[in-house]
Amino acid sequence: METLAAGTTVLELVAVFVSAVSGGLAAVRKKFDVFGVLVLAWVCGLGGGILRDVLIGDTPPVGISQWPLVVAAVGAGLVTCVLHPGLARLRRSVIVLDAAALSLFVVQGTTKSLELGAGLLASVVVGVLTGVGGGVLRDMLVGEVPLIFADRQLYAIPAILGAGAVGLLWTADLWSWWTAVLVAVVVLGFRLLALWRGWLVPHVGVGWTGRWGRDSGSMDT
Amino acid sequence: METLAAGTTVLELVAVFVSAVSGGLAAVRKKFDVFGVLVLAWVCGLGGGILRDVLIGDTPPVGISQWPLVVAAVGAGLVTCVLHPGLARLRRSVIVLDAAALSLFVVQGTTKSLELGAGLLASVVVGVLTGVGGGVLRDMLVGEVPLIFADRQLYAIPAILGAGAVGLLWTADLWSWWTAVLVAVVVLGFRLLALWRGWLVPHVGVGWTGRWGRDSGSMDT
Amino acid sequence: METLAAGTTVLELVAVFVSAVSGGLAAVRKKFDVFGVLVLAWVCGLGGGILRDVLIGDTPPVGISQWPLVVAAVGAGLVTCVLHPGLARLRRSVIVLDAAALSLFVVQGTTKSLELGAGLLASVVVGVLTGVGGGVLRDMLVGEVPLIFADRQLYAIPAILGAGAVGLLWTADLWSWWTAVLVAVVVLGFRLLALWRGWLVPHVGVGWTGRWGRDSGSMDT
Repeated sequence: METLAAGTTVLELVAVFVSAVSGGLAAVRKKFDVFGVLVLAWVCGLGGGILRDVLIGDTPPVGISQWPLVVAAVGAGLVTCVLHPGLARLRRSVIVLDAAALSLFVVQGTTKSLELGAGLLASVVVGVLTGVGGGVLRDMLVGEVPLIFADRQLYAIPAILGAGAVGLLWTADLWSWWTAVLVAVVVLGFRLLALWRGWLVPHVGVGWTGRWGRDSGSMDT
Repeated sequence: METLAAGTTVLELVAVFVSAVSGGLAAVRKKFDVFGVLVLAWVCGLGGGILRDVLIGDTPPVGISQWPLVVAAVGAGLVTCVLHPGLARLRRSVIVLDAAALSLFVVQGTTKSLELGAGLLASVVVGVLTGVGGGVLRDMLVGEVPLIFADRQLYAIPAILGAGAVGLLWTADLWSWWTAVLVAVVVLGFRLLALWRGWLVPHVGVGWTGRWGRDSGSMDT
Repeated sequence: METLAAGTTVLELVAVFVSAVSGGLAAVRKKFDVFGVLVLAWVCGLGGGILRDVLIGDTPPVGISQWPLVVAAVGAGLVTCVLHPGLARLRRSVIVLDAAALSLFVVQGTTKSLELGAGLLASVVVGVLTGVGGGVLRDMLVGEVPLIFADRQLYAIPAILGAGAVGLLWTADLWSWWTAVLVAVVVLGFRLLALWRGWLVPHVGVGWTGRWGRDSGSMDT
């Protein structure tokens, strides 16, 4: 899979860079200092991968041990510090690039987990976490409820379908560089289509007001 | 320990299901979308176990690799999406089931850690984390301070006593399926008794207003 | 390195104790119950080390398996419960001790990671995380945005320089007990100097109001 490995390296750096920019912008908006922006960029760009590596037992995670990845993430943070007003105007471009990053992270995360023998189910879960984990960690660090849970965007569903497709193709011995690209493109396309057509995930029963009385322990009402 | 293994499997699924319901209800109350409810259910049902497995080095965690557990958690999420108004009326039943889940997670978490050779102290800590970890992760993901720290409920104390009892019985070579059941029942009983009698953990010194001035770095005042 | 090992053990306990006190004080201020104060003390004192051990694959983490460390952290929590009004008056002393704890954690965290073969870059990152991780976890558990990102204090910069110095000296085979002490003293001195002279990290572009419109998915604006 040399071609795939060489190909994903460049694409991986681009995905990390784009995700890191979104993290840096979140930090700028929250008026973090320069160090805070760099850390948020790093968390958003590499956080999903670090989660993946810890869950599949590959330590230390590549997100803290491989120079190109760390430089891409921290570099994105520095770029964000300097260019953030202009980046604000590039909203559409960044959304498309972010969707591409999602598809890449999902394919790469699921694949790495399968290669390390984690099993089909675990690899699908890990693939999804690699794709969405950076954003969740970023939201938690800026003190917000993770956007992905409440904004009704079809973000995790393309991720789950992509990770599942990777898992099935792998199990059926149909995995190669071009099936990898195919899955990534389908995930990207699904995400962009959902954005374009305004598809949303339904809320759950708005009528209930949750009158449980006093919460106790983990018995959240 | 075949009987114990077979017995805990069913009990374990019940414990995961109940905890997952409490997580799902928290998400519904916060108006998460369907995906958010499913994730919160999964985090609350299996989060403690994932924490346990990462800390004792058993990767990938069973909470992402074993179908029955994942199905139990996500299934509980789906059930919560559909039945949440009715679940609100079952408050008492859910509190009892949740106490049972706590006792089971604590016994099972401590035991697994001891079996993998983590040592007495680490296993007691891990056992407590398995019991309370799901709730803490859930509270953090919905943007709240973990309930367990401030609500004064005797939740962690039964957990610590249970994990400690498991550790001591194990070290004294008195561990078997019926001592496991005994400890679980005692933890459950303690928790329910504390709820019934209204026992609370004391606050710490309400008189102090904390006039440190400006916080700096990790030097929290 | 027997002398170093014996020396750091006592210093390590002091560092854990001091950090744990800062965690306990944060919990008291948030009106946590006694259990909550003890947990926050433990998280702040040992959280960085647990993060380090998970990232470099040393499980179970010493923060849950070694009695002296756990006793130091929980003991600090108990001391905080009893003496917190008086501790409030010791603000300056605690700030100095906390800076000492930072320098010690950074040197010890980086060294441990290098000894376990994690590589130069990963060890520097892990060293910084060992130093600042406890405070970040503490802030997240009390429901605040981590102070370290927005307060503009030179906290992480001394940490990064210290971890980097340890890494370079190690790689150049110049590592010994007295270079360890030297680096720790320099980090401490840098931190105290920054506090005394009021050096601050710059904010990033206050002029931008972040008009991205509706956030979508991980595309945080």
